[in-house]
Amino acid sequence: MSKETFDRGLEIRKSVLGAEFVEKSFAAADDFNMPMQELTTEYCWGAIWGREGLPRKTRSMLNLAMISALNRPHELKMHVKGALRNGVTKEEIREVLLQVAIYCGIPAGVDGFRIAREAFAEEAKAAE
Amino acid sequence: MSKETFDRGLEIRKSVLGAEFVEKSFAAADDFNMPMQELTTEYCWGAIWGREGLPRKTRSMLNLAMISALNRPHELKMHVKGALRNGVTKEEIREVLLQVAIYCGIPAGVDGFRIAREAFAEEAKAAE
Amino acid sequence: MSKETFDRGLEIRKSVLGAEFVEKSFAAADDFNMPMQELTTEYCWGAIWGREGLPRKTRSMLNLAMISALNRPHELKMHVKGALRNGVTKEEIREVLLQVAIYCGIPAGVDGFRIAREAFAEEAKAAE
Amino acid sequence: MSKETFDRGLEIRKSVLGAEFVEKSFAAADDFNMPMQELTTEYCWGAIWGREGLPRKTRSMLNLAMISALNRPHELKMHVKGALRNGVTKEEIREVLLQVAIYCGIPAGVDGFRIAREAFAEEAKAAE
Amino acid sequence: MSKETFDRGLEIRKSVLGAEFVEKSFAAADDFNMPMQELTTEYCWGAIWGREGLPRKTRSMLNLAMISALNRPHELKMHVKGALRNGVTKEEIREVLLQVAIYCGIPAGVDGFRIAREAFAEEAKAAE
Amino acid sequence: MSKETFDRGLEIRKSVLGAEFVEKSFAAADDFNMPMQELTTEYCWGAIWGREGLPRKTRSMLNLAMISALNRPHELKMHVKGALRNGVTKEEIREVLLQVAIYCGIPAGVDGFRIAREAFAEEAKAAE
Repeated sequence: MSKETFDRGLEIRKSVLGAEFVEKSFAAADDFNMPMQELTTEYCWGAIWGREGLPRKTRSMLNLAMISALNRPHELKMHVKGALRNGVTKEEIREVLLQVAIYCGIPAGVDGFRIAREAFAEEAKAAE
Repeated sequence: MSKETFDRGLEIRKSVLGAEFVEKSFAAADDFNMPMQELTTEYCWGAIWGREGLPRKTRSMLNLAMISALNRPHELKMHVKGALRNGVTKEEIREVLLQVAIYCGIPAGVDGFRIAREAFAEEAKAAE
Repeated sequence: MSKETFDRGLEIRKSVLGAEFVEKSFAAADDFNMPMQELTTEYCWGAIWGREGLPRKTRSMLNLAMISALNRPHELKMHVKGALRNGVTKEEIREVLLQVAIYCGIPAGVDGFRIAREAFAEEAKAAE
Repeated sequence: MSKETFDRGLEIRKSVLGAEFVEKSFAAADDFNMPMQELTTEYCWGAIWGREGLPRKTRSMLNLAMISALNRPHELKMHVKGALRNGVTKEEIREVLLQVAIYCGIPAGVDGFRIAREAFAEEAKAAE
Repeated sequence: MSKETFDRGLEIRKSVLGAEFVEKSFAAADDFNMPMQELTTEYCWGAIWGREGLPRKTRSMLNLAMISALNRPHELKMHVKGALRNGVTKEEIREVLLQVAIYCGIPAGVDGFRIAREAFAEEAKAAE
Repeated sequence: MSKETFDRGLEIRKSVLGAEFVEKSFAAADDFNMPMQELTTEYCWGAIWGREGLPRKTRSMLNLAMISALNRPHELKMHVKGALRNGVTKEEIREVLLQVAIYCGIPAGVDGFRIAREAFAEEAKAAE
């Protein structure tokens, strides 16, 4: 493991998904899933999100499109919240999901809109 | 069919995929696939690409990510060329595909890079 | 938007998914997801379901097969109910799902049978 | 293995895909892939296609939809030819593929139309 | 149906998924889904799991990898429990899921680890 | 980047895919795809294949199953050859692909068997 890449990844991951969420994930990890926490932090958040070639806002939009295509509802909700944190507006999220509906099919779009609205509602409640 | 949406779609489609390519597609269409040509032009290019909420450059990057996830090599190659036409740089295409490799898996990334290089080579040859 | 296609789509959508369900969807829609409601109604229900080339019963069976393959449980349940409304019998739904099990794999078939039974139970309860 | 189911499957498979094609497949099989030939013939063609609950024409249309969703071009081409043999018209194949384009996304539809046209051309050539 | 293959399948299915679970599945089956119970038992558990070419432990690991890729959470949880019954250790399940994360993408890995932990917790509770 | 993980990955990658193939890949890489070569070597081959928890033979079988499910023919052919190098026998490859046919569907199995036979033929020719 490269400690430098891991540390950069940890910082970005906290800034996108929320420090509290990430700290809880590590606190709840055991021998079984700690290697996954480490791999994700270093490889996904350090080695890719840590690259300079694209702004985080663009990376968030790409994730919404890809994770919709991949059909992973838990991850999609988390990345809708992350997208808001990275400055993607609700109007832009709507545009991404409409494009999903055409390219990945109507059911992918319907699921995406439902999950995004759940994410918005949870964020609004958390902000109360 | 809405003639207005179709016409806007036709213009955008030509501008992204190349007028010659689109004209050939319509010229080669017969009773069997003409409704698909029309549907794609009106809904995909008119109703979605014709919306104002996202710049075309962003829509192109979203497409590279989604079509990689969807595993459609013919369409991916066409949209790599379209992305170049929309001002996405090769460095940005690289960043999108690295993100694909992490979120959709290494084989999706490997396929994406191979297809992008084929698209670049074809564009270079066409420009000779 | 083509008002004519939208109106035809709205009528078909209500007739397949139930008028109450569709009216609730529009009533609950906000600025964020109204464009998705409109796109689905016009494009999916008007431009495709509104075509004459196949009976609605066949379109319902195709949807059960495709949505099983696409792995979208929410949409699948809705379309099982729609299939019943379009005259597909439970015996025919069973045949479609057995074919799904062979072509899309056993796990797709198992999921499809579970979801269909849930849909049947909900419809029976609603009819009480 | 149930010889009865295998024999019924072999007959149906020949009748849908062409006797010559199926005989070649068995003749070319070796120790490595013979069990796959047998499995497919018995379970897919005997145990499923051999059931009475749906006409073969409907089963062919379901296959076009599912195999498009599954993104398997070799199998799709073979089943387009099989669909013609089962009495599905080109107009009906078009309708199935338009529905694929909406539910599985535009790239799935584009690929489906291209492959169907290749299948039609190959059949026309074989009939010369 | 081959009674011999069905019987072998039933025995293996009970031994991997638990006799109680399998007996409940058959007891709860009705005209609608009994053919699916029979197909799965004969075809999946008899004709494939009943083959000698691979140890059950290896087949369990292959299933964890494939069902993760196929994105079927219900089936994945059941096969995590089956893997434990077949002697796959938690450490080996971890290794399979890390490989999933790299080849199928990080979201597939995250989902896999969450589902495996739920399966472990349910098994621990059942053993109390 | 961690040089240690990269170096371990490079060694394993060469030993599984063939030194000549890997050296050619690096020699042919340019600014565009070199980061992908490096990412794959470090994370996929170093961080995952370099772990001790599973023998390489098992990892190869998992890859055949997953890459079949992911529907990536180029990668599948490469990993069939790698599997042979890691001591997986043709009989074992057959068993994996039969299991693929049941869990991922018959078309996935058919494609897998065809690609494996192509890989075997290429290896036999290369050994002449």
